[in-house]
Amino acid sequence: MSDPRPARPASLAVVGAGLIGASIALAARAAGLTVTLADRDPAAVAEAVARGAGRPARPDDPPADLAVLAVPPDAVPGTLLGAQQRRLARAYTDVASVKAPVVAEIRAAGGDLALFVPGHPMSGRESSGAATADPDLFAGRAWALCPGPETDPAAAQAVLGLVALCRAVPVLLDVAEHDRAVAVVSHVPHLVSSAMAAALGRAAEDDLRLAGPGVSDVTRVAAGHPELWTQILRHNAPQIATVLDRIAEDLRRTATALAADPPDLATVTELLTQGRTGRSKLERAVAHRADRPLRRTG
Amino acid sequence: MSDPRPARPASLAVVGAGLIGASIALAARAAGLTVTLADRDPAAVAEAVARGAGRPARPDDPPADLAVLAVPPDAVPGTLLGAQQRRLARAYTDVASVKAPVVAEIRAAGGDLALFVPGHPMSGRESSGAATADPDLFAGRAWALCPGPETDPAAAQAVLGLVALCRAVPVLLDVAEHDRAVAVVSHVPHLVSSAMAAALGRAAEDDLRLAGPGVSDVTRVAAGHPELWTQILRHNAPQIATVLDRIAEDLRRTATALAADPPDLATVTELLTQGRTGRSKLERAVAHRADRPLRRTG
Repeated sequence: MSDPRPARPASLAVVGAGLIGASIALAARAAGLTVTLADRDPAAVAEAVARGAGRPARPDDPPADLAVLAVPPDAVPGTLLGAQQRRLARAYTDVASVKAPVVAEIRAAGGDLALFVPGHPMSGRESSGAATADPDLFAGRAWALCPGPETDPAAAQAVLGLVALCRAVPVLLDVAEHDRAVAVVSHVPHLVSSAMAAALGRAAEDDLRLAGPGVSDVTRVAAGHPELWTQILRHNAPQIATVLDRIAEDLRRTATALAADPPDLATVTELLTQGRTGRSKLERAVAHRADRPLRRTG
Repeated sequence: MSDPRPARPASLAVVGAGLIGASIALAARAAGLTVTLADRDPAAVAEAVARGAGRPARPDDPPADLAVLAVPPDAVPGTLLGAQQRRLARAYTDVASVKAPVVAEIRAAGGDLALFVPGHPMSGRESSGAATADPDLFAGRAWALCPGPETDPAAAQAVLGLVALCRAVPVLLDVAEHDRAVAVVSHVPHLVSSAMAAALGRAAEDDLRLAGPGVSDVTRVAAGHPELWTQILRHNAPQIATVLDRIAEDLRRTATALAADPPDLATVTELLTQGRTGRSKLERAVAHRADRPLRRTG
């Protein structure tokens, strides 16, 4: 018992009572943890409390075992520094969808990176806010964790405990690997989906009556909030731009091939074949994710 | 009883015992129709028969009330002319995913367009063949029908009867409207999905462990057969090229905006906002599809 910090946290301080924060809080409550909730918007806290996600944080609360900073990427460094100054918790994690710029800013501002384990649950909804929070939101999903060489092992254990009680699959990567990976599995698909949905917006509404589940699936994530997504994408802009530019070029080349008379079918088949191969690779990676949850990439 | 042809067919001849043909046959069998099955591949017929989709067609079968030509677009005109010559049925429909070129070819070849109602059930699977045929494949889906000025009303009634027993929602359009509509709701989404999946194919497989349902939805249809889809896309190439080229340009412009230092966020937000608007339009169109199933567009 040389380390008094528990592997699984007994108390959780959630800062940011939106969809993700409130969903984590609900999962923690379901697992029997004490949960406090804070948000710059008192109505958000009230809504999460009404959902049974915990009780409002008080200034005299003792330090929690773990604090989850479920705030937008921009707000993570300032929120972490403020929380560490007032000793909100013994360990910290966040849920921001980009990691390298956030960690760089925390480092530059003098935050304590030993007690901060960058995290990113790969789960969300088109909706936002505690109203649609769900303790099962993370079940079976990947939850990226990016501990660095300076990370305190007990802090990492506490965060792993949180991921486990949310029934998510922890995936360890370094911050650069994370940002490259989310560009291709989350940020770029969002933009591609938006571009397809924008084309639907230009079509005759009567034409859209023929839509089936295919186009519905392709455009589902395009329902997300433009402002929230702009902020998410902004922080990971260089990684996204590289992948997206190549996709734009593939589509332009395919459009040109189809516009030719006769159409250049080999170019069309090539894209379809590469797409089918990539889809198989995705299915394989997801199917085997849980086989080696803690293997580092690279 | 001046018209001996029934509104709902009592007998169905299915030519082409793949996924779509066998699924229609299963739905017709479930509704009590007599169903005969033909395919240039005897093994396909045997598999459909084994699934309970009907019995093999015989040369001396009397004319069916309706024949469904569930063959690839290329094969529809020749199959229809051959079927009409041997009086396979009293009315005909097809399931090809493009309509104007098919009808033009039938017209040029001297086929009887009065008894042919071009059709296109907006349903499918990544799999093909009778093995995964499903009588519920069309339930709740749009089924495009493109009767022309020359169409015999009794033939149209027979096809509407088939659509009804498949529990699909009939949507009437002319052939040009159909081809424009499927470009934007089916063909282009397939290519966009393929281009996204091709980008996954270029990524590190370990990075794909972070994938969630978003990218999985965006790339689901990319699992389709490249050769089958090349043929589908080929026939509708000009309509697809126009829509696809604009999407490629939207993505290229967004990539450039993200690569700028600082990123041009207004351009990014604009695409996301257009995407969200288009997605809402799609949801509205699909929700109201059944409210006015037989209204013509245009």
